[in-house]
Amino acid sequence: MSILETINQPADLRDHSVAELQQLAEEIRHVLLTKVSTTGGHVGPNLGSVELTIAWHRVFNSPHDKIVFDVSHQSYTHKILTGRKQAWLDPDHYHDVSGFTEPRESEHDFFTIGHTSTSVGLASGLALARDDQNTHDHITAVIGDGSMSGGLAYEALDNAAVLNRQLLIVVNDNQWSIAENHGGIYQNLAELRKTNGEASNNLFKALGLDYRYVADGNDIQSLIDAFEAVKDIDHPLVLHINTQKGRGFKPALENEEAWHWHVPFNLPDGSPKHVSTGENYWDLILADLDEHVQHGVPIYAMNAAVPGGFHLKDWAAKYPKRYIDVGIAEQESITLAAGMAKGGLRPVVFHSATFLQRAYDQLSHDLGINSLPVVMLINGGRISGGDPTHQGDLDQAELANIPNLTYLAPTTKEDLIAQLDWALAQTDGPVAIRVPSNGVHSDPLAPDFAPTKMHILHHGTQIALMGLGSMRPLAETVLGKLSAQGIDATLIDPRSTNTLDPEALDQLRGFHKLVVTMEEGTLDGGFGQKIAAYYGPTDVNVLTLGAQRRFNHNETRDALLKEFNLTPDTATQAILNALKEI
Amino acid sequence: MSILETINQPADLRDHSVAELQQLAEEIRHVLLTKVSTTGGHVGPNLGSVELTIAWHRVFNSPHDKIVFDVSHQSYTHKILTGRKQAWLDPDHYHDVSGFTEPRESEHDFFTIGHTSTSVGLASGLALARDDQNTHDHITAVIGDGSMSGGLAYEALDNAAVLNRQLLIVVNDNQWSIAENHGGIYQNLAELRKTNGEASNNLFKALGLDYRYVADGNDIQSLIDAFEAVKDIDHPLVLHINTQKGRGFKPALENEEAWHWHVPFNLPDGSPKHVSTGENYWDLILADLDEHVQHGVPIYAMNAAVPGGFHLKDWAAKYPKRYIDVGIAEQESITLAAGMAKGGLRPVVFHSATFLQRAYDQLSHDLGINSLPVVMLINGGRISGGDPTHQGDLDQAELANIPNLTYLAPTTKEDLIAQLDWALAQTDGPVAIRVPSNGVHSDPLAPDFAPTKMHILHHGTQIALMGLGSMRPLAETVLGKLSAQGIDATLIDPRSTNTLDPEALDQLRGFHKLVVTMEEGTLDGGFGQKIAAYYGPTDVNVLTLGAQRRFNHNETRDALLKEFNLTPDTATQAILNALKEI
Repeated sequence: MSILETINQPADLRDHSVAELQQLAEEIRHVLLTKVSTTGGHVGPNLGSVELTIAWHRVFNSPHDKIVFDVSHQSYTHKILTGRKQAWLDPDHYHDVSGFTEPRESEHDFFTIGHTSTSVGLASGLALARDDQNTHDHITAVIGDGSMSGGLAYEALDNAAVLNRQLLIVVNDNQWSIAENHGGIYQNLAELRKTNGEASNNLFKALGLDYRYVADGNDIQSLIDAFEAVKDIDHPLVLHINTQKGRGFKPALENEEAWHWHVPFNLPDGSPKHVSTGENYWDLILADLDEHVQHGVPIYAMNAAVPGGFHLKDWAAKYPKRYIDVGIAEQESITLAAGMAKGGLRPVVFHSATFLQRAYDQLSHDLGINSLPVVMLINGGRISGGDPTHQGDLDQAELANIPNLTYLAPTTKEDLIAQLDWALAQTDGPVAIRVPSNGVHSDPLAPDFAPTKMHILHHGTQIALMGLGSMRPLAETVLGKLSAQGIDATLIDPRSTNTLDPEALDQLRGFHKLVVTMEEGTLDGGFGQKIAAYYGPTDVNVLTLGAQRRFNHNETRDALLKEFNLTPDTATQAILNALKEI
Repeated sequence: MSILETINQPADLRDHSVAELQQLAEEIRHVLLTKVSTTGGHVGPNLGSVELTIAWHRVFNSPHDKIVFDVSHQSYTHKILTGRKQAWLDPDHYHDVSGFTEPRESEHDFFTIGHTSTSVGLASGLALARDDQNTHDHITAVIGDGSMSGGLAYEALDNAAVLNRQLLIVVNDNQWSIAENHGGIYQNLAELRKTNGEASNNLFKALGLDYRYVADGNDIQSLIDAFEAVKDIDHPLVLHINTQKGRGFKPALENEEAWHWHVPFNLPDGSPKHVSTGENYWDLILADLDEHVQHGVPIYAMNAAVPGGFHLKDWAAKYPKRYIDVGIAEQESITLAAGMAKGGLRPVVFHSATFLQRAYDQLSHDLGINSLPVVMLINGGRISGGDPTHQGDLDQAELANIPNLTYLAPTTKEDLIAQLDWALAQTDGPVAIRVPSNGVHSDPLAPDFAPTKMHILHHGTQIALMGLGSMRPLAETVLGKLSAQGIDATLIDPRSTNTLDPEALDQLRGFHKLVVTMEEGTLDGGFGQKIAAYYGPTDVNVLTLGAQRRFNHNETRDALLKEFNLTPDTATQAILNALKEI
């Protein structure tokens, strides 16, 4: 009988010796690897924090005592120990739990969290509530894995010192962020590791926090001893724990970055189960940028700790001086780019839609007000399904309403490159480009790009269909379905989420009684509402198809598209229904 | 002849001895005080940094060498020395220059900046550009006055160490933020001051930065020596300068916080020229919160370094344990509140519209996804005129499109308190309240508040006027003007910027051919566009009146209201024009 079979709740850990718990750690590593090799998931961060999580649950009493995982992608072991192990043991239940902490799943989880640097602030709030209620539970934040470079972590550490409550801050130092750890602070962590916690300048002590160091963060006895020793300290304390990311899986140890998150793979060599081949937009973008560099354009590719998703590794190797990864520090990625653009460089910043919202003030205040020509390439702006923490349909409401910022939505590779070239040629202000997420499409006949010119693909009457970005193929399909009903609709590629084309819009009047907008984003704050307001005082009716303003939890993308009338059948039906009403 | 009369550009400083420059500092203090006593402005920060600015311009060669002021509200001396002194010497020119650095004014300014913690990132960008172009100019960032608590400053310091370029980072340590300096870092600065820069834990060194200390930051010789010594160092260096906020003006020295920014006042005693009296919304809000505390509701009032604007001083004195000022750390203010709400407390966060955008990710990811019942009271959400860095009309596009977040817009004191009470009674999710900026209005007949119920103030036909928040009085006036034209319009107080009332909206159909929305916010992403989309597929026309999506530079509020058709005459005319078209 395995040890894991005996563990159904954290209290069960107390029935075992430390040696057995060390064995449990290996069993958990095995089930972690077995599942993620099938489903994909965060590999390295979870392999490194198995012992830490076991020891915490052995010493503390969850959920009375509370643990808050930063980012929470390293909470797999926590889930296994708190009644959710079936999701790792039984393939039929592999999708029962999310990849992040989730209060809907368990009383041992307190926040749905998937963005970094949040744990210390959230845990500080729980500590304040505890002291208000005199419940004396112990609060722990677990931060690490690159989260320390985010400004929110600093703001929270700074305030934790002032609030001065019992708060255990575990710095899980696995020596890596998602990509290499960037920034001066990682040098300080390295010095602290080298000196067994005794380095002369200590960031945490400088912030007014108490501090202790654990040299072997994968040794359960050391961890139990450390937790026992600090458990009842009445003030905030940083417990700096040196762990090994990817521990127990050779490929993950050899390439920590590639194994931060991984697609399904073969055990034991780690080769991917499916290899994606063929054209993709990121390689096309980088080839275009390369050409601009060859022509003397001072392009710098920039990124915040996730180069892999944008294929930036080759760029970084070819142009080490033209590549900047600021670490998990989205605010700095934009403010630094603002300064670079002011100095005459052409920074091109690669961001995921969900993370760029962390730089909202910088986009508006630093870039927008100063009209600085930073180019941004946005990944994942789509109706995504899956975890709400990484929901992709909120980017238009975020970016498209910032003054001076142009947010473009290309539909094909020709369009994408034309827009990128235009964005690099102009110096009037920031331009973001929503890179389509629906595979590479081509339209060699696309006209040159001009920022406020829609592309009219087909001239019809009665109905005009506007398929924004990745919704162009849907609009094309709906065009065919309407044609089968005897309606010869107009088809338009708007090309921009937020700069309208008054001339084209005015020309549609008279020949069209209904304009239909289709967008992969929330309707509130989006493209369709801008069109609806434009036609508000006219005789043109507008039907806006897009996502509802809400966080989705377990829905699939397909179910969402259907619900939002963004499939060929549902969209066509919605249009025909609207036509009947007007 | 005064020294100041001889200074028309920075190079003129070189014609003077250090003793004369010290005299110049006193002359500049005099003109600073004379102007701000008439116009209002940032008093303390500018009085403290006079010598620092003189010494920098004496040693460096602006604009070839570049200085970037954080927040830039301490740039008055810089402006006086760089050709703009008339704006302090001649009352007719008092309004010629803005209160912040402004590239439109001078080649010595590089960014329009009014939010904190931006300088190091921006200056790092300039340094990268310099090195790309091999121009060898010296780049300096001046940070301090509370800006060090913002996470962006940390992200930028962290990256500056890694980028490792010539970059002088002046930490202007005047021992104060806007309010008292909060957070562990200020303890470290105090230790560094106490030990003449030799404290055993040094935050800047821990971040991997070189460091030097200047004990008397108001002594020009010391400052010149320090700048000369570090000028050509080829890596990033923090020059920690101990200055005296409010120096040279007794009232400002005695109450540094009150004199950070001040309304017009009488010299020399500092008494205000105009005393505002009478009812105001902030006192009403705090009285209501006080009552809730008396009834056992665990309310915590929270703030990010600007308690004065919300009248929070009395609250803090009465309830020190129920008051939290996180310092200039807007992200932490929301994440901490999220944790507190999860723990069962009822945090009420007071924010200015322009600064809350710094916590966009926290509003969406921490509060929204987790549906945590944090209440936020928003100041300054209005068409503001003046500096674009503090523009007030962007808050709806920011807040109202975040899922799960309700953004209310009361119109009267009864409405405001009813909405606040409702927000505190519910636990479904975050609620922000846009506190009206148009003086205290009263309507004792306002019905109880329910979140998706509009308040129909007058039932008419043909046209329905929706006056959102502070636009209700305008809508009432327009109602009268339309009545004089024989049109009996319907008058509606929508009460919420982002939760529609489908029942009421559907009832308007049939009896109304035009719905007019009036809002003090940008149209893009705002209330009117939501209404326009709602009625898009119907026979109801919609006219949206509000602000254009753009940053305004020198326009007055009155001019903007007129341009945006938000005055009684312009609104009425726009409505009558629209009516003719449909």
